[in-house]
Amino acid sequence: MLDRLSPPPPTARVNGGRLWSRLMAMAAIGATAQGGCNRQALTDGDLAARRLLSSWAAAANCTVREDAVGNLFVRRAGRENTLPVVMTGSHLDTQPTGGKFDGVYGVLAGLEVIESLNDCGIATLHPIEVGVWCNEEGCRFPMAMMGSAVWSGRLPLESAYALTDRAGRSVRQELDRLGMAKELPMARQPVKAALEVHIEQGPVLEQRGKTIGVVTGVQNMCRYEVLVEGQEAHAGPTPMEMRRDPIRVLADVLPALYAAAHARGPAARLTVGIIETSPGSPNTVPGRLRFTVDVRHPDIRHYDQLRAAVDRLVRAALQQHALAGDLHCVWEAPGVVFDATCIDAVRTATAALGYDAMDLVSGAGHDSCNVAAVAPTAMIFVPCAGGLSHNEAENALPSDLEAGANVLLHAMLSLACAA
Amino acid sequence: MLDRLSPPPPTARVNGGRLWSRLMAMAAIGATAQGGCNRQALTDGDLAARRLLSSWAAAANCTVREDAVGNLFVRRAGRENTLPVVMTGSHLDTQPTGGKFDGVYGVLAGLEVIESLNDCGIATLHPIEVGVWCNEEGCRFPMAMMGSAVWSGRLPLESAYALTDRAGRSVRQELDRLGMAKELPMARQPVKAALEVHIEQGPVLEQRGKTIGVVTGVQNMCRYEVLVEGQEAHAGPTPMEMRRDPIRVLADVLPALYAAAHARGPAARLTVGIIETSPGSPNTVPGRLRFTVDVRHPDIRHYDQLRAAVDRLVRAALQQHALAGDLHCVWEAPGVVFDATCIDAVRTATAALGYDAMDLVSGAGHDSCNVAAVAPTAMIFVPCAGGLSHNEAENALPSDLEAGANVLLHAMLSLACAA
Repeated sequence: MLDRLSPPPPTARVNGGRLWSRLMAMAAIGATAQGGCNRQALTDGDLAARRLLSSWAAAANCTVREDAVGNLFVRRAGRENTLPVVMTGSHLDTQPTGGKFDGVYGVLAGLEVIESLNDCGIATLHPIEVGVWCNEEGCRFPMAMMGSAVWSGRLPLESAYALTDRAGRSVRQELDRLGMAKELPMARQPVKAALEVHIEQGPVLEQRGKTIGVVTGVQNMCRYEVLVEGQEAHAGPTPMEMRRDPIRVLADVLPALYAAAHARGPAARLTVGIIETSPGSPNTVPGRLRFTVDVRHPDIRHYDQLRAAVDRLVRAALQQHALAGDLHCVWEAPGVVFDATCIDAVRTATAALGYDAMDLVSGAGHDSCNVAAVAPTAMIFVPCAGGLSHNEAENALPSDLEAGANVLLHAMLSLACAA
Repeated sequence: MLDRLSPPPPTARVNGGRLWSRLMAMAAIGATAQGGCNRQALTDGDLAARRLLSSWAAAANCTVREDAVGNLFVRRAGRENTLPVVMTGSHLDTQPTGGKFDGVYGVLAGLEVIESLNDCGIATLHPIEVGVWCNEEGCRFPMAMMGSAVWSGRLPLESAYALTDRAGRSVRQELDRLGMAKELPMARQPVKAALEVHIEQGPVLEQRGKTIGVVTGVQNMCRYEVLVEGQEAHAGPTPMEMRRDPIRVLADVLPALYAAAHARGPAARLTVGIIETSPGSPNTVPGRLRFTVDVRHPDIRHYDQLRAAVDRLVRAALQQHALAGDLHCVWEAPGVVFDATCIDAVRTATAALGYDAMDLVSGAGHDSCNVAAVAPTAMIFVPCAGGLSHNEAENALPSDLEAGANVLLHAMLSLACAA
């Protein structure tokens, strides 16, 4: 093996064919009839995926270890193994009707970086690790980004262990069943820097014709649930002015919500994903209305103003129509601003490789949100077809996946080779 | 028995206590734990109710017959039994969570009129009949006002026979099972006039402090179903301007629909009873929106204009947001204008009895809509508590029920005693 420490060769590239064939091999585990993947956290499929990855890691002269919450780390030694690691990684679990790329791409791109370093005979000063975060999706056990939350100290290990799926099986029981939690330590390794490459899960890169998204942070996001109590009444005999019709609140609020989001600029996101009327009869004025409002903005000032507008508009409409009801914030995730040095490493690598790129703020949460709480972090996005994700039709171009892995390779090299 | 033909004594009154006790006795058949009634059409409970009514009718020297579709007629002879009958009646079947008064009151008020005539020794020129229309509710077998529709010639007998409940049992099978359809004739008796007394099923009489509603007709009514096709997208990564969000159509249409109804005056009724989003996830832009619009107006000109507005508003919103979708009229019932002579009989009786009254147009359909197609018809409404109906909490004041029966008595007398 050659032993070049610095500078790394600007001609080093990942093997896009190998990356693609491994993505397809991994996609066979839990493959669905519609071409997607069902490989939820801590299932037999999840275990099979970890074993396949571990076999590839062992063949690449890496060590593999797990921690107490089922996170898995593939480690390639550096020249100074007492130095903090330069990390990458993502997750191998999927939604029940998930795709082949969400998460898996970030893990296998990390392995591809290691293999490419091996191929080129490049040693790094810092050791490199590829993390596989346990239960990122949160669909089986109801806590998205669970493994990275425990690792970063944001979630107590016991809280993660106690989470149960719909059949009542706990995370701890499933870790035991799969032989993955033999009283392992939960200690967090020191991290110099962390990068995660991921499909965008949105349409922006594709529509703008860009290959790489330099992700500078994650939006502030929260979710409201609004309940409005009306009074059931027969649609025929009840005059309009004698009704207590909860849909009046929706009629006032919906256009005003969209206007409020528009007023906060193009980065604002407002989604009414659920509207339910009860009892749900065509000739009965509903006695009850429930709807959700998901609010996101990368700028905390605009975000706070948009949240205040949602609150004000709903309460004003309730008052206007003299109806009982309330809105509750049922979920909130504060925004993340990624580390300037890590962002710069991504930006510099992208420019050196000559890819068309743009800055993006992630609209979705990722394990990197947790990692960023304890280590300098950034992300790299690549386009996905039609912006589709959490969908069996999820797809991405091999050339884009290769480009993202090349950016990851060179950004990690720049971080792992410098002292 | 005295035999006074005309004029009937203005002092004749129904026995309100007897009427109430019979209402309570009938309510015991199919009584629910919450104080309502579950006595759906052609169940054993329906048969028991018919048998109880028939026993009272026989004790009142009346004859009872059924026709081929399960309508039941209680007949009190007149002086000239070849003359057309003066009819009243309603239905004994209830909703699954129905009340004690809807329909049942109209039948038992009719029987009370007969008993009061007996008590007072009054003979009428025309025979009197109390009809019990089969399957008015349409909740078990999906055709509201089924029996009166067949009787009036608006629905073929075979179509009624073929209707099935959710267990797959047909009307014909259930008529046979209950011994109610032994190749009976479907001939329609000649009818001079028909009146129906019913609880209002709305809040107007109660809120205006009136005892009697003189029902001059039934609203025009129809129901639309609107579908909007959007595209599912992640609430986070998808910019607002790249979405195909079906809720945008709802935001445009809802306030405009209420404004359009308001523009058609206080008699207009517009109800959005069902709103459904699919897939119904708080962080997914819905791929599909479905909602219903129920439109009613007593004035055909306003009704047509309101229907045109609904159509125009929905199509404009679909076009505005470049979304596929459509609206369909899934049900329509044309309005009914009741007979001037019958209305006058009700109005005159009400005035003579000194009850506070107001004219009303029924917002709901009744058997009288079918009867009105073949005979001079009108209706009488009495208040119900809070306007509640199709509800186990349905209630009415004994004094109001007595007042309605007295109006029915005197209106029927005036129609049955005149040649």
